[in-house]
Amino acid sequence: MPSVPEPEIAERLVPEDLLEAWSLLVPEDRIESFQALPRPEAEDLFLSLSARDQAELLRALPAPERRSWIRLLAPDDAADLVQEIPQDEREEILSLLDDATRKDVNGLLAYAEDDAGGLMNPRYVRVRPDMSVDEAITYLRRQAPERVGAFHYAYALDPEQRLRGVVSFRRLLAARPEQRVQEVMQTDLITVPEAMDQEDVSRLFATYRLAAFPVVDAERRMKGVVTLDDIVDVVREEATEDIQKMGGTAALDAPYFRIGIGDMIKKRAGWLAVLFIGETLTATAMGYFEAEIARAVVLALFVPLVISSGGNSGSQATTLIIRAMALGEVKLRDWWHVIRREFLSGLGLGCILAVIGIARILLWQALFHAYGTHYFLVALTVAFSLIGVVLWGTLVGSMLPFLLRRIGADPASASAPFVATLVDVTGLILYFTMAKVLLAGKLL
Amino acid sequence: MPSVPEPEIAERLVPEDLLEAWSLLVPEDRIESFQALPRPEAEDLFLSLSARDQAELLRALPAPERRSWIRLLAPDDAADLVQEIPQDEREEILSLLDDATRKDVNGLLAYAEDDAGGLMNPRYVRVRPDMSVDEAITYLRRQAPERVGAFHYAYALDPEQRLRGVVSFRRLLAARPEQRVQEVMQTDLITVPEAMDQEDVSRLFATYRLAAFPVVDAERRMKGVVTLDDIVDVVREEATEDIQKMGGTAALDAPYFRIGIGDMIKKRAGWLAVLFIGETLTATAMGYFEAEIARAVVLALFVPLVISSGGNSGSQATTLIIRAMALGEVKLRDWWHVIRREFLSGLGLGCILAVIGIARILLWQALFHAYGTHYFLVALTVAFSLIGVVLWGTLVGSMLPFLLRRIGADPASASAPFVATLVDVTGLILYFTMAKVLLAGKLL
Repeated sequence: MPSVPEPEIAERLVPEDLLEAWSLLVPEDRIESFQALPRPEAEDLFLSLSARDQAELLRALPAPERRSWIRLLAPDDAADLVQEIPQDEREEILSLLDDATRKDVNGLLAYAEDDAGGLMNPRYVRVRPDMSVDEAITYLRRQAPERVGAFHYAYALDPEQRLRGVVSFRRLLAARPEQRVQEVMQTDLITVPEAMDQEDVSRLFATYRLAAFPVVDAERRMKGVVTLDDIVDVVREEATEDIQKMGGTAALDAPYFRIGIGDMIKKRAGWLAVLFIGETLTATAMGYFEAEIARAVVLALFVPLVISSGGNSGSQATTLIIRAMALGEVKLRDWWHVIRREFLSGLGLGCILAVIGIARILLWQALFHAYGTHYFLVALTVAFSLIGVVLWGTLVGSMLPFLLRRIGADPASASAPFVATLVDVTGLILYFTMAKVLLAGKLL
Repeated sequence: MPSVPEPEIAERLVPEDLLEAWSLLVPEDRIESFQALPRPEAEDLFLSLSARDQAELLRALPAPERRSWIRLLAPDDAADLVQEIPQDEREEILSLLDDATRKDVNGLLAYAEDDAGGLMNPRYVRVRPDMSVDEAITYLRRQAPERVGAFHYAYALDPEQRLRGVVSFRRLLAARPEQRVQEVMQTDLITVPEAMDQEDVSRLFATYRLAAFPVVDAERRMKGVVTLDDIVDVVREEATEDIQKMGGTAALDAPYFRIGIGDMIKKRAGWLAVLFIGETLTATAMGYFEAEIARAVVLALFVPLVISSGGNSGSQATTLIIRAMALGEVKLRDWWHVIRREFLSGLGLGCILAVIGIARILLWQALFHAYGTHYFLVALTVAFSLIGVVLWGTLVGSMLPFLLRRIGADPASASAPFVATLVDVTGLILYFTMAKVLLAGKLL
């Protein structure tokens, strides 16, 4: 769960330089520059930091100073911070909170981090449906200012705490004072179950383009509110995770400079080793064609060209499909629709590369006599292999994300390097088989 | 500029199935199912569609029906829609708007799509700093309800329309009625210049975690408001563009299924052809080592393995750096810091692969006697090449995004396939040179 202080317009003016430099400072410098700030600016800075940075800062501060800092945070932000604290120090940090907030924070910690329940703010503004608008406004004014400050909506709950409707403050303002809340509130509510995954929550925001959703339990009792600002972080985080997986790394889960070299190597070595071991199959495959290579060394020259074309076209296809899936543009049931499109794309792209390939070989032959008497057959071998390999790469790249999603894995794991490795081995076999057919009796 | 109707909680309940199915329907079915909906549901659906879909729908409707639909939109959304209409039909569509909105829309169309000016809503709620809170609330109630509906903030402007402060409706509600607006308004404002690029605007939201920023001109005159909901779309769009470029395609700029096969091939063929032509250098490079390959065919067997390892490690490095740059975690001036880290990572990863590579060759030799008498020297050649190629791939992959940004290009163009192609040629040269040194007098 990202750290999201309640968004509020222009209430905090942070020394931007310090905020930007923060990730570059060593911990001692951070504490020092933090303590050098006047209190209001230090508060601005603290509220703008990520939960991870807040936790680090808090632990570095002298114990007596910690209370006033953690009490600046709304319950969902305090819960985020606590999650960044080592298990054995959490009790101590929790004891700094006031009773109401501690209860809220403990409630939030019981939710999975990636659930709607883990994302929501448990504080919101309540009204009763049968209040008049005037009473509601007076009632809002009486509620603790920080609570009124958090949202722009009031939720109308019945005596069983079940959600009946919602009304924005601006609508209250625009209504006649004698109207009842239930006359001006919205009752067609889209609610979010507390266990909904954050990616699904983010798609709900994208579909309905609303500013906030109430979170309810199975009995429609109101538990909290998820707001758009939580979702911006989710969208950013999910994109980062996907991008990192698509590049063939484990998701880093932290900013680049925050990861020690040892951890960085660990995050990267896993996939790299798996890909490497997969790629050793190319040595095995080429071993089967050792005799052909010995007889026609010219064939070896085009191996990298042919197989990399399969990898590149596969990388394009897998990237487009993974992203389209993440955006909800392409669903599991669309696989047949996708395969037909990608077949045509792959064929078209393969033909384009084949033409360039033939031109390149004929040109070099004319200029340097580089490829011997049977150069034209070699050119044809390369060209037909390119069509086959690009088509194959495109199909593998586009179908692998479907396969992964089908078996419940993350489609983003169908990284460009993964697809390239899969396609390399088959590309080699295709190329040498094509050569055997076309060059039989001539070069081979 | 994305289509962003004002977010409002639960005021629109769209038949979700229809919304989800929309992209799969042929245009005639869209019109038919749209016209079959009761008016309120049809309005919900219309407001939930993207600007592109709204424009398509509007053009398909009979001319007399169009006016009532386009008038549902706020000026920034109407401007988005107009941008999706062919140039020669725009006047006709603009003539459907009321005069005030048309003026706003024309003003917005003058901004670049990706500017703060192109993103902002030109309508917002004004108050005067010297009004009392009570007067301000009464004044807000008198303003057109749709305008009050759009935002949760009132902007305090002086007689020259210069921005003096901002106050949220909830703060007005919480204030005593006799206080002056200037006593409760915030004056420490972060404003956005109208020409600021949308990516910078999105970083401003990420840094300050505010819900809205006022957009001002050089004289600090208020021009409009950019809100968080505009930014969610920007974040999503920018990630999509980056992901597509990183996969080695031009950015699609439209959902996957909306792009015709011809256009799809065009978007992909450009980079694929460039990479292919770059990759033909591998054939040239291998041509220089034809004699060595003829003498020691065993060397050819490991070519794909060695060069793909460089490509994979380069792909990891470039992906991590591009994303870290996009998130603002890594800046241009950090290049030296990055190079030192990546040197260590590359060296570590290279050593890991070298160990696996030696083990693989020794194992196959023990099992199948696959690699001849000089198998150990071959294993060493592969191992040292792997260290060199992985280190090189990592450095190229991590530095290329810096180079691209330095020359003003998009770092995301340093796609995995691009880095792999760069590294393939140099990897080959490194491998065969290593072989010449280590195998001289033995195999070569």
